[in-house]
Amino acid sequence: MKLKNYLLFGLAAATMTASFQACKPKGAGSAVSGDAAQRTYIPPGQHDEFYNFVSGGFSGQMSVYGLPSGRLFRVIPVFSVDPEKGWGFSEETKPMLQTSHGFVPWDDLHHIEASFTDGMPDGKWMFANSNNTPRLARINLQTFRTDEIIEIPNTGGNHCSPFTTENSEYVIAATRFSVPPDGEGDVPIDSYKENFKGHISFVSVDKQTGEFDISFQLKTPGLNFDLSSAGKGVSNGWLFMSCYNSEQAHTLLEVNSSKNDKDFILAINWKKAEEYIKAGKGKKQNNVRYAHNKWDEHTHTAKHEIKTEVTVLDVTEFEDLAYLIPCPKSPHGTDVSPTGEFIVGSGKLAALIPVFSFDKLQKAISAKDFESELYDGIPVVKYESALHGEVQKPGLGPLHTEFDDKGNAYTSFFVSSEVVKWNINTLEILDRQPTFYSVGHLMVAGGNAKKPFGKYLVAYNKITKDRFLPTGPELCHSAQLFDISGDKMELLLDFPTIGEPHYAQALPADLIKERSLQIYDINANKHPHKTNGESEARVERNGNIVRVYMTTIRSHLTPDVIEGIQLGDEVYFHVTNLEQDWDMPHGFAIKGANNSELLIMPGETTTLKWVPDRVGIFPFYCTDFCSALHQEMTGYARVSAQGSNVPVKYYTGEKTE
Amino acid sequence: MKLKNYLLFGLAAATMTASFQACKPKGAGSAVSGDAAQRTYIPPGQHDEFYNFVSGGFSGQMSVYGLPSGRLFRVIPVFSVDPEKGWGFSEETKPMLQTSHGFVPWDDLHHIEASFTDGMPDGKWMFANSNNTPRLARINLQTFRTDEIIEIPNTGGNHCSPFTTENSEYVIAATRFSVPPDGEGDVPIDSYKENFKGHISFVSVDKQTGEFDISFQLKTPGLNFDLSSAGKGVSNGWLFMSCYNSEQAHTLLEVNSSKNDKDFILAINWKKAEEYIKAGKGKKQNNVRYAHNKWDEHTHTAKHEIKTEVTVLDVTEFEDLAYLIPCPKSPHGTDVSPTGEFIVGSGKLAALIPVFSFDKLQKAISAKDFESELYDGIPVVKYESALHGEVQKPGLGPLHTEFDDKGNAYTSFFVSSEVVKWNINTLEILDRQPTFYSVGHLMVAGGNAKKPFGKYLVAYNKITKDRFLPTGPELCHSAQLFDISGDKMELLLDFPTIGEPHYAQALPADLIKERSLQIYDINANKHPHKTNGESEARVERNGNIVRVYMTTIRSHLTPDVIEGIQLGDEVYFHVTNLEQDWDMPHGFAIKGANNSELLIMPGETTTLKWVPDRVGIFPFYCTDFCSALHQEMTGYARVSAQGSNVPVKYYTGEKTE
Repeated sequence: MKLKNYLLFGLAAATMTASFQACKPKGAGSAVSGDAAQRTYIPPGQHDEFYNFVSGGFSGQMSVYGLPSGRLFRVIPVFSVDPEKGWGFSEETKPMLQTSHGFVPWDDLHHIEASFTDGMPDGKWMFANSNNTPRLARINLQTFRTDEIIEIPNTGGNHCSPFTTENSEYVIAATRFSVPPDGEGDVPIDSYKENFKGHISFVSVDKQTGEFDISFQLKTPGLNFDLSSAGKGVSNGWLFMSCYNSEQAHTLLEVNSSKNDKDFILAINWKKAEEYIKAGKGKKQNNVRYAHNKWDEHTHTAKHEIKTEVTVLDVTEFEDLAYLIPCPKSPHGTDVSPTGEFIVGSGKLAALIPVFSFDKLQKAISAKDFESELYDGIPVVKYESALHGEVQKPGLGPLHTEFDDKGNAYTSFFVSSEVVKWNINTLEILDRQPTFYSVGHLMVAGGNAKKPFGKYLVAYNKITKDRFLPTGPELCHSAQLFDISGDKMELLLDFPTIGEPHYAQALPADLIKERSLQIYDINANKHPHKTNGESEARVERNGNIVRVYMTTIRSHLTPDVIEGIQLGDEVYFHVTNLEQDWDMPHGFAIKGANNSELLIMPGETTTLKWVPDRVGIFPFYCTDFCSALHQEMTGYARVSAQGSNVPVKYYTGEKTE
Repeated sequence: MKLKNYLLFGLAAATMTASFQACKPKGAGSAVSGDAAQRTYIPPGQHDEFYNFVSGGFSGQMSVYGLPSGRLFRVIPVFSVDPEKGWGFSEETKPMLQTSHGFVPWDDLHHIEASFTDGMPDGKWMFANSNNTPRLARINLQTFRTDEIIEIPNTGGNHCSPFTTENSEYVIAATRFSVPPDGEGDVPIDSYKENFKGHISFVSVDKQTGEFDISFQLKTPGLNFDLSSAGKGVSNGWLFMSCYNSEQAHTLLEVNSSKNDKDFILAINWKKAEEYIKAGKGKKQNNVRYAHNKWDEHTHTAKHEIKTEVTVLDVTEFEDLAYLIPCPKSPHGTDVSPTGEFIVGSGKLAALIPVFSFDKLQKAISAKDFESELYDGIPVVKYESALHGEVQKPGLGPLHTEFDDKGNAYTSFFVSSEVVKWNINTLEILDRQPTFYSVGHLMVAGGNAKKPFGKYLVAYNKITKDRFLPTGPELCHSAQLFDISGDKMELLLDFPTIGEPHYAQALPADLIKERSLQIYDINANKHPHKTNGESEARVERNGNIVRVYMTTIRSHLTPDVIEGIQLGDEVYFHVTNLEQDWDMPHGFAIKGANNSELLIMPGETTTLKWVPDRVGIFPFYCTDFCSALHQEMTGYARVSAQGSNVPVKYYTGEKTE
């Protein structure tokens, strides 16, 4: 009967997107506030109220919008090369995308979460997870660049990530696909239950520098961790993670992992785990290999390092680390309320939303009010014992829940394509608004913090179809901005997004503006190939390595004429931008180079590698329009045959060397 | 004195950006229309009025915005890989970015221009130029994808491009940096005047298929071609190109190419050149090597080919092909009015704008009203003989001119940071509006066509600084939308842009909407590794080549469990998306792959190559949220040691092979 139920609902859920489209409302005029234009318009010269940091999903990037205007200010490369920023093409940035199995130019970024201090975003960093090649990243909100990436061992699909604890003591990275631990991999896939394990990584964040360290991993039986929230306030010290494949299926999950009426939320007492680690209970695992890449702000260069050890604690060896809370059905989002007291489980195939009480959970654990043990001895708390209550008939396909500053929760419904507002205490439904179409994640400004900012909610929709002018078979995804300051949600604006927006954060503009850097101090630039002013511009040959120490300032490149390069040479253009004025980048490109461009911010040194493949004259130029005489900011390099007697020679305007 | 003049003005021009900032107006409230919010707001469910196709500059991409909302609907990869589209990562798309010197993942796209029929955009294609690695591209407006890229031989910096003739008979590609012809390159750079040549390529466009062919090249003395406009209407058959380095300087152009009070516009009689080519006057040059890459719409795969011949006509060998028109001073834009009668030269260091008359030019040529011959015998028409008149005191640093539907011209001024409206006939200045900051290109909807659409003008500004919320040292560029339907220009909106917007086009929405494709017909898919439905999904080994014929449809990948892969294998996942519903793409990623993802549009087959580097279990999954059971759309691949006896085995839900 369970299977039959599933098939009926599952089939409906899986195909509902299509059938929903057929009967979609025409336009959306009725829900739109009459003065929405005024409320989303930012007059030229004025600034938006919030920064909206939005994950890019399969693009591997993170984008930055203004709210309420919905304007895109920046796409930040995180796990992918980016030709708009030159990220991953210069010699300095390439190491950032190295992994234990080489250079990965494109990956799948899922969620982002802000760094927190006392449960509130502190404006220092954004954290992001790479799903396919399991990694965590830290983005610096002074520079809007990725400062650090760490690979996560023993993990398959780092989806349940990068959710942080109340003071960002740890960023969590947990396996969506259980896999055999690293080094124990050549086993039959149908031995899943015996050989496949889950790992939950606690990656510490240095309070000052932000630097990552995999403090420890918790090893679990084979489970699929989907999403998580750390406790806060009363529940600080705990972590809650949705597990959607309680069946431990390993094939045709569409059917086989959707059989049970209830799956689980796994509650982890991470403070207790910390104690065990301090007491030396963890085991060193030395057969792992993972990349740890850091941006060096002094040399303006990324360093790539491989690490080979991690400390692992097996939760099944301890009685008081992990508890399973039954949760109907295939839970996706697991979201903790601002006070930390309530844990909302969104079972994507469930017809209700269970809300668990942290207080009741603790009492149930103390009283050992368990219904069973599963998966090598993890206690299963009785559903009713942990339950605060259920939101009845909320909609179809609940996915995620966010919170406002007035005691309300907002849940996204993929199948019935709507956002539903309900009261956290009374569980009463207060409002519902359709979304166009099939909302996935949603975000309230500060909606995962102790004191949400409220005011705006954004629905990030999975299906776009006719919402914007068509662009062929491949369409942007779509976001919808709602004003939630009144009793009813008011739709204000549709705006397109980059990649696939999974989770997002909105931070008040002032929190970031105050920290934002305008230039890099050229005196602090310690790049090993920096050129200290035009008088030091030069060309140096060492064997077949030719280094061009070049400067750029309005409106010339120095040197601008270079001879004496030969076939077989490796040429490095180390270009230093001498400008110390905000928004005065220069670019550099030379014909014949494969990674053919650079972008250099004021005060930075950046390097282009060129291995000429033919004899000739190769023009180079500034690629970023900088001044009235930008078009004149050019030069030529001459490449001669190997063994040619053309000497190294360069012109710097006044002098020829 | 000339030099002194230059130094005064040039220094002012070069540094004015900085000083201008110091005295910039606070905000821009006064110029903004009171109901700008209403006039730029597109209510949810409704569509924008125009598509705005905008070049991405150094990003190598082209972006598509809606007007008047300024919303970004799509970034189209053209000369760069793009992690949002998977462009340049799949086996099918990689060949599109091959050049004669290998794979170029990032390049510098400068201008775009629409395909024209009888002087009006026909909605079929956009053309784009790559500046650094000289190339032309054709973007298909049914699919919003790049369908073709051709490399341009004998060329250095393909900046003066891709401007097309009245019926897009030809797209022009001309050298910004003269260089020695291919194969004659190892010469001293200071032999510029003798050895460096300009080449202007006439690339024909097949009226039906759009296919490119380098019909012929015109070889000229060493000149810098900056921008061009083809004649239209009365001047159809001619081409006008700005030349900013009449001094033929090769070093410190900031000073040395800015000495002359007048440089030139080169007028080319291309119909005459066509006749000479037909008469066999061109010379075959066989020492060139250039890539010609085409997307095959049947196999969904790019083909890369190298060509080795081009036909060249030396303009100095003919009396009636090319004429120089003196133009003050360092001309940048050269723009032809809607009737074709007027040619506007924007000398970026000039204090006036000369407007030339095509009729007077023809009369001067007939009368041989020349002031001299230059550069091996090219006649120089007398300035006054070709001049319609001068716009006096227009502003500082004129760059580009566009036209409206009422006989007006609009010129951008970089240094004085404004757009100036003037009457084409009377040359009277009618209005001026400040831009924030330092406008480069500008665009009127249809402003380069025979019958401009008018209504909107967009200024694409080079400096952003404080216009939007700050994002560290690296900022987006900025556009400003003006309503030009009244007597005075009205500023409506600031919106951020992707990369560096050089030229742009705006086309009425209906022209594109009608042609837009929603899905790829799966029955027409002739990919050699297509899978015709789930029953054909399979794994095949041939030596160390393993091919996975995979299908994807809501909500499963078939096969979803694969064993028998060994170290040393090359694994190809050929993934066919069986969906035939608009906006139902699927993604694919597998842990351990370097090009780790695919995006597959409905009806397409796309290939990911994977060379495993270690033994283990590697999860794979759909990367583009597609359905309520998307999270269940996963599988596992097992990699064993080389020589292992684990047989090739795969599961397709019901059956195991």
